[in-house]
This record gives sequence, C-alpha cells and structure tokens, in this order.
Amino acid sequence: MAKDLAANDEMALVVLSGGQDSTTCLYWAIDRFGTANVSTISFDYGQRHIIELECAARIAEHASVSNACLPINTFAALGGDALTDSDIAVDNSISAESGLPNTFVPGRNLVFLTFAAAYAYQRGIDHLVTGVAQTDYSGYPDCREDTIRSLQQTLRAGMESTVVIHAPLMHLSKKETVELALQLGALPALALTHTCYNGARPPCGECPACELRAKGFAEAGLEDPLLQTK
Amino acid sequence: MAKDLAANDEMALVVLSGGQDSTTCLYWAIDRFGTANVSTISFDYGQRHIIELECAARIAEHASVSNACLPINTFAALGGDALTDSDIAVDNSISAESGLPNTFVPGRNLVFLTFAAAYAYQRGIDHLVTGVAQTDYSGYPDCREDTIRSLQQTLRAGMESTVVIHAPLMHLSKKETVELALQLGALPALALTHTCYNGARPPCGECPACELRAKGFAEAGLEDPLLQTK
Repeated sequence: MAKDLAANDEMALVVLSGGQDSTTCLYWAIDRFGTANVSTISFDYGQRHIIELECAARIAEHASVSNACLPINTFAALGGDALTDSDIAVDNSISAESGLPNTFVPGRNLVFLTFAAAYAYQRGIDHLVTGVAQTDYSGYPDCREDTIRSLQQTLRAGMESTVVIHAPLMHLSKKETVELALQLGALPALALTHTCYNGARPPCGECPACELRAKGFAEAGLEDPLLQTK
Repeated sequence: MAKDLAANDEMALVVLSGGQDSTTCLYWAIDRFGTANVSTISFDYGQRHIIELECAARIAEHASVSNACLPINTFAALGGDALTDSDIAVDNSISAESGLPNTFVPGRNLVFLTFAAAYAYQRGIDHLVTGVAQTDYSGYPDCREDTIRSLQQTLRAGMESTVVIHAPLMHLSKKETVELALQLGALPALALTHTCYNGARPPCGECPACELRAKGFAEAGLEDPLLQTK
C-alpha cells in the first residue's frame, strides 16, 4: 500500500489471473519496478475456465516476464462455490444466507496472497501486486483495503518479512482502470485477457463480468482490444 | 484469543495435526464447547510423515468427534523446505540466510488457519482452535500471539465473519501443556499422537521434537503414555 517509489533493485511479484485488472497491474509493476525486476504468479485452483491460466501465460510472455503457476487443490475440496463447482450456476446472485455472491470462495484472495508471499519470501521479493479493487465493489470482502492492509500486517508478522502489498486499482473505477491501462501501454496486452464468467471467446457480452468490462471501456471512450481481435 | 465462556450452542473447529499439542487442544475444546459442538480438520499437505494424518483420524475417533481432511498440494510445489522435501535433512538447524529453522514452510500456519476459517465459515462455526505456542519458541513466527491476533483480524475482515482463534497453549511451557492434558483427561489420547520428526514408532527419542516432548513429561513428573504403550 506504500506509495513511495521503489529502489531500482527491488523486485515485485504480480498475482496474474489472466484478467483485465491483474494484467493492468502487471504493466503498473513493470512501469514502477522495471521489466527485469517483475515476475508473475498464477494459481491453478480448479477455476471453471482453465483458459484463464493460458491467458496469464500468454500475457506474461507478451510482457517478457516469467509466469509461475502453483496448484491449489483445496478450494475444490472445500466445494460448494460456483467458480469451482460446475453444478452451480453463475448468476452473480446474492446468497440469502451470507449476503455474498455465489461466486465467493471464502478467503480466496487471502490464500492467493499468502501463497504468493511465501513464494516471494523464498526469492527475496518484497513487493506483491494484486488487482483487487473495492470501488466496483462486487461483494468480496477479501478485496477491500482494510482486509489487504490487515493481511499485509499478518504476512509481515507471520513470515518476519517486510512485504508490501500493492493494490493499485483499489480506488479506481473500471473507467479509471481502462484509462490507467491506456497510459501504461497495456491495451495490446488486454487483447489477451479473459474476463467472461461463461468462459466464452469471443466473450458472451451478457454475464456480469462482460457487462462491467464493457461499461469501463464505454465510459473511457475506448474500444476493448479484446473485441477488436475477434 | 477471547477468554470468556462460549454459549452452549457455539461450535468449534480444532486444527488437528495428530501431535501432542493439537490433541491437548481438542480436549480443551471438548471441555469448553462440549463433544457435540466440536469437530476437527487436518491437512494433507505433503508432510513427510503421513502417519500424522492416521493419528489425527484415530484421535478424533477416540474423542468421538468428526475429522475432515483437506488436501493442500501447494507447499510441495513451493518446495525447498525440509518437512515436505525428503532430500533435505531435518536437523532443526537455523538457516544462515533467514535465521529460521529449515523445517519452516513460510506461512504454513497462516494457510492452515485460513482454510480452516473457510471451512468453518461454510458451516457456521465461529471458533477455531490451534495448538500453536510461542513459549517453547522454535523459530516459527506464524506461531506467535501477535501473528495469530493479526490473522484473526484479517479473517474477520476478509470473510465478514466473527471468527475467534483460540490458542490455549500460546503461553504454556511444555510442562504446563502436559499438566493441562492431565487435567483435561487427554492423557489416553496422547498415546495415539505422533511427535517424532523422524517418523519413528516407537519414537526415536533423539530428534528435537522427541526431546522437547520428553522434557515436558519429565518436568511434569509424568510418564508419556505414548512410551507406555510400546
């Protein structure tokens, strides 16, 4: 969350999902730390659309940074969430019981960032970069600033590290995220991203994720490069 | 970390490793919440000695509580630590680089407790119980009270929950842990536990884990029931 400029030799690890937000964050990290000091990590956690991981690998290659993929077989065993259980419809509906969307895997981002921190710790990397945002708040409490700030403190205490979690999109709207991508030269890479909840390529254009993405580009007055390639 | 008595209908989930400390915590939870309100969770994370999981299942059965086992294949992929890599000797030596024992998996307890919290969240369980202790401090920063307190805050924020993490052994010496086990009627269950770093049954008696356990029983003036059964 620190805003000060990093020294030239500091390294950053970007949690890269293969989507629009984390790809924009990758270019933010490259802009700030330099290509040679940036690497990416993705998680094969049983997500419904394995195409996300292929996108992440392609985006990293496009940006000339490495991409590690760590398996996590625990969420599937925990079960009961829409993103890993193909029997559950993805409608972004709110669960009556929890008040959270049915795509919610409890603590998913906490787990991703904790494993990313362990991977970074082993390599002397102090900066983690994540695309979470609370502005277009979609019901995920593990994307909020107070959660990320608390997690940073927990990781520092639990690993005796000086890790810094950067969430450059935290307070940006989707429109502002698109504008940031433009400014960072990330638009060509956004053509390689995957957003659609239904796993469609070209994107379905109708699911909540497609709609939110389209809204961001429309408000920024730009065409989505993902749609131009199709 | 709360010390107040739980209401009768509150449920607790014990992170059960199959060792002495978590088994003592299971009996602490049963004493406080009642057998019917306690369940246990174990993790198959690629530990060197799979016998730990068999012990956990047997201990839960002995105590008449359920035992779920969740897989975590991520630590093995992270690699490089002694507990999951059979090529690395377990000598409890301190790494010159990190100042931590070579059995340290960065953030291991953070991951266990986060997954336990997700599992508990799905079942309406508010109380997590862990056997971590900072008294016989063995170099694991994720076992310290400040880490556990910070993690509790992170889990509450990240899952919108009111989870409470109990670490009843946090400030007890090994001697006091043995005395607590005696007081809770947990000694017969301790005969079913596994402690030895070398995976030996009967225990090798020479590794740091065996030595620490023996010291605790000796100082409490009790015979270790694990040794009596052999």
